[in-house]
Amino acid sequence: MALLKGNAIVGQSGGPTSAINATLSGVIRGAADSDAIVKLYGMVNGIEGFLEGNIIDLSGLFFDEKKLSSLELTPASALGSCRKKLPPLSEDLGLYQRIFEIFKSHNIRYFFYIGGNDSMDTVYKLSEYAKTVDYEIRVVGVPKTIDNDLPEIDHTPGFGSAAKFIATAIKEIATDCSVYKVKAVTIVEMMGRDSGWLTCAAALPKYYTGIGADLIYLPEVPFYDNEFLDDVMAELEKHPNVVVAVSEGIRYENGSYVGASNQSGAVDVFGHKYLAGTAKNLEALVKREIGCKVRSVELNLLQRCASHIASATDIDESILVGKSAVSLAQDGATGEMVSMVRSDESGYKIEITKVPVSHVANKVKFVPREYINEKGNNVTKKCIDYITPLILGEKPIKYENGMPVHIRLK
Amino acid sequence: MALLKGNAIVGQSGGPTSAINATLSGVIRGAADSDAIVKLYGMVNGIEGFLEGNIIDLSGLFFDEKKLSSLELTPASALGSCRKKLPPLSEDLGLYQRIFEIFKSHNIRYFFYIGGNDSMDTVYKLSEYAKTVDYEIRVVGVPKTIDNDLPEIDHTPGFGSAAKFIATAIKEIATDCSVYKVKAVTIVEMMGRDSGWLTCAAALPKYYTGIGADLIYLPEVPFYDNEFLDDVMAELEKHPNVVVAVSEGIRYENGSYVGASNQSGAVDVFGHKYLAGTAKNLEALVKREIGCKVRSVELNLLQRCASHIASATDIDESILVGKSAVSLAQDGATGEMVSMVRSDESGYKIEITKVPVSHVANKVKFVPREYINEKGNNVTKKCIDYITPLILGEKPIKYENGMPVHIRLK
Repeated sequence: MALLKGNAIVGQSGGPTSAINATLSGVIRGAADSDAIVKLYGMVNGIEGFLEGNIIDLSGLFFDEKKLSSLELTPASALGSCRKKLPPLSEDLGLYQRIFEIFKSHNIRYFFYIGGNDSMDTVYKLSEYAKTVDYEIRVVGVPKTIDNDLPEIDHTPGFGSAAKFIATAIKEIATDCSVYKVKAVTIVEMMGRDSGWLTCAAALPKYYTGIGADLIYLPEVPFYDNEFLDDVMAELEKHPNVVVAVSEGIRYENGSYVGASNQSGAVDVFGHKYLAGTAKNLEALVKREIGCKVRSVELNLLQRCASHIASATDIDESILVGKSAVSLAQDGATGEMVSMVRSDESGYKIEITKVPVSHVANKVKFVPREYINEKGNNVTKKCIDYITPLILGEKPIKYENGMPVHIRLK
Repeated sequence: MALLKGNAIVGQSGGPTSAINATLSGVIRGAADSDAIVKLYGMVNGIEGFLEGNIIDLSGLFFDEKKLSSLELTPASALGSCRKKLPPLSEDLGLYQRIFEIFKSHNIRYFFYIGGNDSMDTVYKLSEYAKTVDYEIRVVGVPKTIDNDLPEIDHTPGFGSAAKFIATAIKEIATDCSVYKVKAVTIVEMMGRDSGWLTCAAALPKYYTGIGADLIYLPEVPFYDNEFLDDVMAELEKHPNVVVAVSEGIRYENGSYVGASNQSGAVDVFGHKYLAGTAKNLEALVKREIGCKVRSVELNLLQRCASHIASATDIDESILVGKSAVSLAQDGATGEMVSMVRSDESGYKIEITKVPVSHVANKVKFVPREYINEKGNNVTKKCIDYITPLILGEKPIKYENGMPVHIRLK
């Protein structure tokens, strides 16, 4: 295959993570090393900013080791993000034409979009449209999401760092809660609208050290108030300080969210409901039915931005995935997403591969039933073994005035 | 003065901090080095556990460098804690007699109590009672509280680590919030029932890096809904992502808590109200009156237990304060609290001193008005200069299975 020479553009989309800039750095590193790519542009605020002509030149970062390593430990999308979903081709052909006019005017031959399920939909639509026009461009999806809910990939860049923060926070919170003798229940809520991957990470401290979350509830199994109360009472019999980890997306058998009564009913542009009251509702339930001391804690935004405790494994893999996007595209990949396969050999090892983006777009990977115990109130050893290698290792963090140093690109 | 030889006991009381075990380690190190102290006992669950005979021998830790340095980075009270307040002497003389019987039976001549305002009340009462009996014992208060609200001390051990976590978290959250172009307000709630010290720390990232909390509201100045809304609107004019830091204890002019309508009205044994709905209430206010995207985040328990990002300055000072408690007691101090004075010279320097515990017990040190700007919606440079040295430095954290290593004593 002849080398497709020209410029490239990279964008970030969807919710930020602690590792999404490591992936961006990987794309920059890959582009700098590439024979095919002349200039690398960045979309400011994803496809939305791109349509408004908001583009910056990232080529100045090529081989700038100091800035790139700083970028790799800066949380959130340094290029800005958006939540814009492209309409079907049939509804707004003009939009696709406009996007491609900008591609042409900058001689952009490579488009890398770093994002999750919804962003892969954009990659899919643009790569499908590209087939219909006389302009060669390779459109490659680069995975990221703390939710770990993308199919066709062993785990997603960004998940390991979020999981490391959660495991650490749960360990520290459970230690904090263990100091009093009074019976008390602490309910900690993790992100995860549909899948419970992040909440699974809350199981690690208790498994390894004996102190941590005693009960784990995931959206993958229906939630029953009475079973939950029985579980909590049984734990309170064993020790006075019970820690419960719940996913924001846990639902009753009829499908309604446990957190529903505290929510505004607001939905984002993808139609996803905002949920934030799950632990609060359970706090009220325990107070009413058990009557002991009870409190709720939402780990909230820090799950996706606490880069000061990023997983070195996650950061390194995120860089690798970004670099690999460039080399795969250069070798002809388009309409595909970079993926990772875990080798079956003993020890943890990842191999880079690619999958058709249509297998990923708008799809969700749930926690498999074999990762959840029979009662549905904790995880199994298989789950622990799956997550553990992803949270290993720490990066040296630079501090200035007592706070971690970040870099800004826009 | 003749050397008072005998055994010592140390207890921890009140809310845990990330540095309270560093102080415990300091007491152990001081006792190990002391000519006066033979054995060092630990009260399990403070004076409450002590009364039930729950005492352990800590002398085994003398000179155990590995365990002591691990203890110094373990969050929460490793000896357990309590919230027991001793009744006035006149109400229950028998209780004091029982306490002293246990002291005598173990030949305990030194009692170190690590705690905050309420714990200093225990130190005061026991030292007053000691004057009335024919048994020499020195009772010394060792300060700790993330709230930094003890009088007669430059700052409290535990505050620096909480402030470092808050400054870091606010920096990461503000960076996370900056990725979208849609106007949005993020309200972050810090602990601080009466004093706003912890919330002041939220001002650091914006001061030093331009990104962080744009508005700061403290309990020291009355809160007005309309002024708050005006402040937020003015910030939204300047940039789309506004971050607001509020203390849980902010109050309206009439004294009622902003977080009041979301609270259960429950009080702890000291009569303090539980507050947890301040940011939630302000979120609803902004949604109703401004109508933009808005969310609230409570930093919650991690403020006092995120020892993985402890301030090295705080940990080192906490150890020093613990050690100094022993040497001061050996030199005759009783009914006193170890204190720290900041030297007036250029550069940051701390000197150890002592103050009568009666000057501290049950008293609160507020953020002075000169640390708050005229409008009451931010802090001044004086406040920044006061806090900055306290959050400097990081300790090397040991990780196992991806999580920080902690030690257990009980």
